[in-house]
Amino acid sequence: MSDVKKKKKKTPRPSSEAARGFRDLFGEYLHKRQKATQIIADIYKEYGYHYIETPIIETADALGKFLPDVDRPAGGVFGFQDDDEQWLALRYDLTAPLARFMARHEQSLPKPFKRYQMGSVFRNEKPGPGRFREFFQCDADVVGSANLACEAELCTMIEKILRALDISQDDFIINLSHRKFLFALMEEIGLSSEETTEQQGIVLRAIDKMDRLGEEGVRALLGEGRKDESGDFTKGAHLTKDQTDLILSFVTAKQSNNMETIKCLKALMGHLPIAQEALQDIEIILSLLSSLNPDHNIIFNPAIVRGLGYYTGAIFEAELTFPVKNDKGESVQFGSIAGGGRYDNLVARFTGRTIPAVGVSIGIDRLLSALDQRDKISTEQFPVVITIMDKDRIGDYMQMAALLRKHNIAADVYLGEAGFKAQMKYADKRNAPIAIIQGSQEKENGTVILKDLYLGREIAQTIDSNEEWKNNKDVQKEIPEQDLIQEINKMLN
Amino acid sequence: MSDVKKKKKKTPRPSSEAARGFRDLFGEYLHKRQKATQIIADIYKEYGYHYIETPIIETADALGKFLPDVDRPAGGVFGFQDDDEQWLALRYDLTAPLARFMARHEQSLPKPFKRYQMGSVFRNEKPGPGRFREFFQCDADVVGSANLACEAELCTMIEKILRALDISQDDFIINLSHRKFLFALMEEIGLSSEETTEQQGIVLRAIDKMDRLGEEGVRALLGEGRKDESGDFTKGAHLTKDQTDLILSFVTAKQSNNMETIKCLKALMGHLPIAQEALQDIEIILSLLSSLNPDHNIIFNPAIVRGLGYYTGAIFEAELTFPVKNDKGESVQFGSIAGGGRYDNLVARFTGRTIPAVGVSIGIDRLLSALDQRDKISTEQFPVVITIMDKDRIGDYMQMAALLRKHNIAADVYLGEAGFKAQMKYADKRNAPIAIIQGSQEKENGTVILKDLYLGREIAQTIDSNEEWKNNKDVQKEIPEQDLIQEINKMLN
Repeated sequence: MSDVKKKKKKTPRPSSEAARGFRDLFGEYLHKRQKATQIIADIYKEYGYHYIETPIIETADALGKFLPDVDRPAGGVFGFQDDDEQWLALRYDLTAPLARFMARHEQSLPKPFKRYQMGSVFRNEKPGPGRFREFFQCDADVVGSANLACEAELCTMIEKILRALDISQDDFIINLSHRKFLFALMEEIGLSSEETTEQQGIVLRAIDKMDRLGEEGVRALLGEGRKDESGDFTKGAHLTKDQTDLILSFVTAKQSNNMETIKCLKALMGHLPIAQEALQDIEIILSLLSSLNPDHNIIFNPAIVRGLGYYTGAIFEAELTFPVKNDKGESVQFGSIAGGGRYDNLVARFTGRTIPAVGVSIGIDRLLSALDQRDKISTEQFPVVITIMDKDRIGDYMQMAALLRKHNIAADVYLGEAGFKAQMKYADKRNAPIAIIQGSQEKENGTVILKDLYLGREIAQTIDSNEEWKNNKDVQKEIPEQDLIQEINKMLN
Repeated sequence: MSDVKKKKKKTPRPSSEAARGFRDLFGEYLHKRQKATQIIADIYKEYGYHYIETPIIETADALGKFLPDVDRPAGGVFGFQDDDEQWLALRYDLTAPLARFMARHEQSLPKPFKRYQMGSVFRNEKPGPGRFREFFQCDADVVGSANLACEAELCTMIEKILRALDISQDDFIINLSHRKFLFALMEEIGLSSEETTEQQGIVLRAIDKMDRLGEEGVRALLGEGRKDESGDFTKGAHLTKDQTDLILSFVTAKQSNNMETIKCLKALMGHLPIAQEALQDIEIILSLLSSLNPDHNIIFNPAIVRGLGYYTGAIFEAELTFPVKNDKGESVQFGSIAGGGRYDNLVARFTGRTIPAVGVSIGIDRLLSALDQRDKISTEQFPVVITIMDKDRIGDYMQMAALLRKHNIAADVYLGEAGFKAQMKYADKRNAPIAIIQGSQEKENGTVILKDLYLGREIAQTIDSNEEWKNNKDVQKEIPEQDLIQEINKMLN
């Protein structure tokens, strides 16, 4: 930094808001998220997946895909230049970094390599309600195997996780499809060359909107384009009627059961070699799944696309089927809470050799926002609060806390300097189940007072006057100090 | 993005290395880190600290401190501009974001607010051996209380954590000092005005180097400056001999016990009002600590400084006292593995009101690199591997895995497509304790073969020929399929 004297001017105070599109997490929500990620991690581990962590920052080159030919990487990623002019970027998912990781460490890893990873990913996109620029993903992938048992295992694992999160078998489905159907479709309508990449993109995005826009909306996007309610116009793919009809027959091919859907697809696309490959994969995966669990929830549904461009084979997407309400209280189609697929070419970017891979990603925040409405994950256990009645005896209170902790009771000594009323307010805001009080009188008697704050709250809701509440004897009791652990354990149970 | 046709050229393959100064984590190290962070989190919780998460990205304004008046935030932080031209930056610690968090959420939080947070922080600095640009911190802070019991609790908690990580009472100390001694010193030598900020910095950094450079080195830095072994010259503070002598008396004031050190400091600085305040704080903290545990490991040591500029009161720093070897196998002074202090003015940047605060941060990577040499944290439990002897029966093998998992045995079905030898290599690389083998012969017999891979490895080290190893009957046994769970549990125990 230079030695130039800077003009001292009062700088305005910084805002205490998180940056746009970011958020602080605490309290019940974060507790639930921790519980849910623990459940997910435990199941990934139980299936033999190995935990890894890659850096949050990668070179823009390694992340690839979003890099334009211009000076600054843009389009969805947060990018910036290093001191030595290298372009760096924050990871936008956990799959692109995994591809680099595999290329780097392949030699020292078991093959195939089953890994799981959990962490924040970042998108430099316009934030909106429920859409954040930093969000948490829980991924599991198998790298180095083309075996379709991988797809079956991942689908089974997702089922198990959703069940472990107390989502019943009736409340979700896993949609299964295959990218090769889309490749076959594109070939059939003459959009498989590199020159038509843009048009392909429009078609894929249109198919992906089937559940939101319905047949009419998709037809518009495949044709001249579509104006939405806000007046925004989305460019169309300008397909002919025949092309559009073929795509719509494909998108609406799902039947009442998987066998029927396969039959329908065979009739529609069975003559196309790439589609045949896809059909064969789907049949093998479904038969494996049925042998593992005849009542599985995996539905062959040609209408799913998956946004990410790197998929090459089977794709799957878990979806909640119970009604979920949005911020305005309206029931909405909740969309996918987990998804993945096979991406056989991603590692080859680094090594030149194709290494088959398939993976799944759970979007924990979306999942939790759905679960939140059902109050399914059990709530937090909060610490007991020890109040400070006699400031000179804080050492004694801290010893009392140490004793509780020794007996596995989380204990919080009030560390502020305010009076009794503020301390009770503190205990209340902390959601403490019990407040422990020992003034000089109690000390002399060799007793402590235990205040049952949960009962207190309940009673406070049913009775009217403050006096009445204060005098309620059930809420607090004086006990011999030596019974402390025993009494507290009794109250906590 | 523009529609301009881009020249198609073969781009070179991206490097598979992590970006400079970043690293991939997996295997034993990451497992240890997870175990250690779990131990730390459990103790923070037990003391009543509440978990929060703030974003990894903050506005550069909110992080403050490193922001120069020029266009681009620099000097230690990774910064970049948002789409709407706002400067954003990656957090460089967890304390600056906590200050913003408190300013934002104060009203809805208990007061004082005890929080813990764990996560990656980032420094845009030159990486070196053992110095990374992304590293993991585990912080606990009390915000909203000036009570010195906070300092005592944090020191006690650090002691408990280090003991829980199997570091014995003899193997660490916690150094305690107070920023106000340094303020008093600066006033005494006439360096307390804003104009002398740069010189103050040089003096503080010199004091901080006492343990590495010794008295002579510090004397040089306080005077004309110092040339190190590599020939790099560090600018000196150009103090007079009297000024330098005073500082050196202060830095070397630590005596054989805390009472003596206090006496020594009283003689040296007792006439300075700010130093008196510091002495009083230190005495109260030490007396609380002694009442909690007469054998505590907290040493009053005036030579500690703590690098971060925001400290205003007591500061503390945990240090390992057993010899630690560096990459070259040389015994080195390991430096601090945890540290913190009181920072009463950080929240005021946002609110204008002073909110007292004190906290501690554990540098988990440094701690683990020290513990690694002692092999103190117990090792991972790896999954059992089920081999695929008959490709058509993969569904059966997956069912066998489901059965094991139902009995809480982590199980990994080999998902590749290679032969038996490659599968055994896989199990070995995975560190699997047991491989399960069921070919058509065993299937017919209603048996499975269990191979004890740990025993196999042991035996392989003691015997010479491959033949001998293969024929060793202890290593594998054929058992009835219905005894699978029972036999595996026996082998795992």
